[in-house]
Amino acid sequence: MASRKLLYEAGAKKVFESDSEDHLIFAFTDNFMATDGVQQGKIKGKSAMNNAIAGQIFEYLESYNVPTHFISNLNEKEMQVKNLNLLPVDVVISNSPDKSLCKRYGFEEGKLLHSPVIEYYYKNDKFKNPLVNESHLSALKIISQEEVFHLGRSVSKVNAVLKPFFERRNLILTELHLQLGRYKGYLLIGDEITPDTCQFWGTDNKNTIDKDVYRFDKGNLDETYNKLVTNIMGGA
Amino acid sequence: MASRKLLYEAGAKKVFESDSEDHLIFAFTDNFMATDGVQQGKIKGKSAMNNAIAGQIFEYLESYNVPTHFISNLNEKEMQVKNLNLLPVDVVISNSPDKSLCKRYGFEEGKLLHSPVIEYYYKNDKFKNPLVNESHLSALKIISQEEVFHLGRSVSKVNAVLKPFFERRNLILTELHLQLGRYKGYLLIGDEITPDTCQFWGTDNKNTIDKDVYRFDKGNLDETYNKLVTNIMGGA
Repeated sequence: MASRKLLYEAGAKKVFESDSEDHLIFAFTDNFMATDGVQQGKIKGKSAMNNAIAGQIFEYLESYNVPTHFISNLNEKEMQVKNLNLLPVDVVISNSPDKSLCKRYGFEEGKLLHSPVIEYYYKNDKFKNPLVNESHLSALKIISQEEVFHLGRSVSKVNAVLKPFFERRNLILTELHLQLGRYKGYLLIGDEITPDTCQFWGTDNKNTIDKDVYRFDKGNLDETYNKLVTNIMGGA
Repeated sequence: MASRKLLYEAGAKKVFESDSEDHLIFAFTDNFMATDGVQQGKIKGKSAMNNAIAGQIFEYLESYNVPTHFISNLNEKEMQVKNLNLLPVDVVISNSPDKSLCKRYGFEEGKLLHSPVIEYYYKNDKFKNPLVNESHLSALKIISQEEVFHLGRSVSKVNAVLKPFFERRNLILTELHLQLGRYKGYLLIGDEITPDTCQFWGTDNKNTIDKDVYRFDKGNLDETYNKLVTNIMGGA
């Protein structure tokens, strides 16, 4: 394994080639990234926790017929995934509006929305990662017109399936970031779904228990992270 | 008719109460408005032309089962319409990208898109009329979740039906602005569909033959308008 080629680092993961060009290896690290992608520190044991959580969530989604890139957890800190041709799109699903949504559209902060806001951002530095909709993506030839329907359906289904999954673990899923990519002609959910790509409230007191703890200096991140993982992994 | 109440002026129209509160009277004027809604002058005979064109187009859409607010042309310059509860949404459909789309997303100017860009703008001065998608509109409780599907379908159908309608009249429909509103529980196409709310190219030379003539001082507007109307009204 020592000679395998590092392809890129994405967030708190290193992405390696595997024996097959159809597959990749995701190696989770303990790095903790701020929202701007800059490393802010480490959380001990985070790599193993996120590897386990991502595997569990991808398997759960697959059981609901949501296709993902997940193949298997290889060891404590690594998983094997399908080698997607990633769309240049960040998907952000909000069940509660963040500061940006409140500022842009007048939503009330700290409330749950009666239906989720699903946003697509075109990853393109030249145009400052603008908000787009499916019709922009189709006209830009990023997705086909056939994929327009599939994209919207997959993304809203991930949220619909995961909300009750987390609720049973005493967590309210307030925000979720997704990446999608094409594999042998199909759009699959890629990247990771972990506390690094989600925002939660606790169902008991609505306190934020995620990276905001760090960003807004609300408490001890190690402790919060461990509590969160205990909730997720110990769930029904 | 002298005593009827003027409710508001919208673009180049005066909107009056009718005998029934379920209906309104649209009285077209000869005023020519710039894109910012400020009157720029008059085009002789425009009121009668737009009244006739809007009636023809609404009837054509109804024949394709696209529900509109149109009831009938009352006289040369007036039509009767259903009294909609208008959504605070501007719909902009682009079959060719305008300068703004090119600047925001890198589309190439002067080309036809391989699929239309359909944008919704939330009419709200406080938030500077931001771009939204159906999920924002649903979360803002502007449309119901049931209406999300209906809205997208109606809007793209209007474009799909009108593109060949105009092509047969030697016009390429490059841009189209729509308003929708609710009437007795249903979403209907409202406002007007006329050269005031559309942008065209001629199929012969791709020259713009619409308000851009005026905005960009490309030629004689009266002449261009009459040519355009002759094309539309004389079509198959």
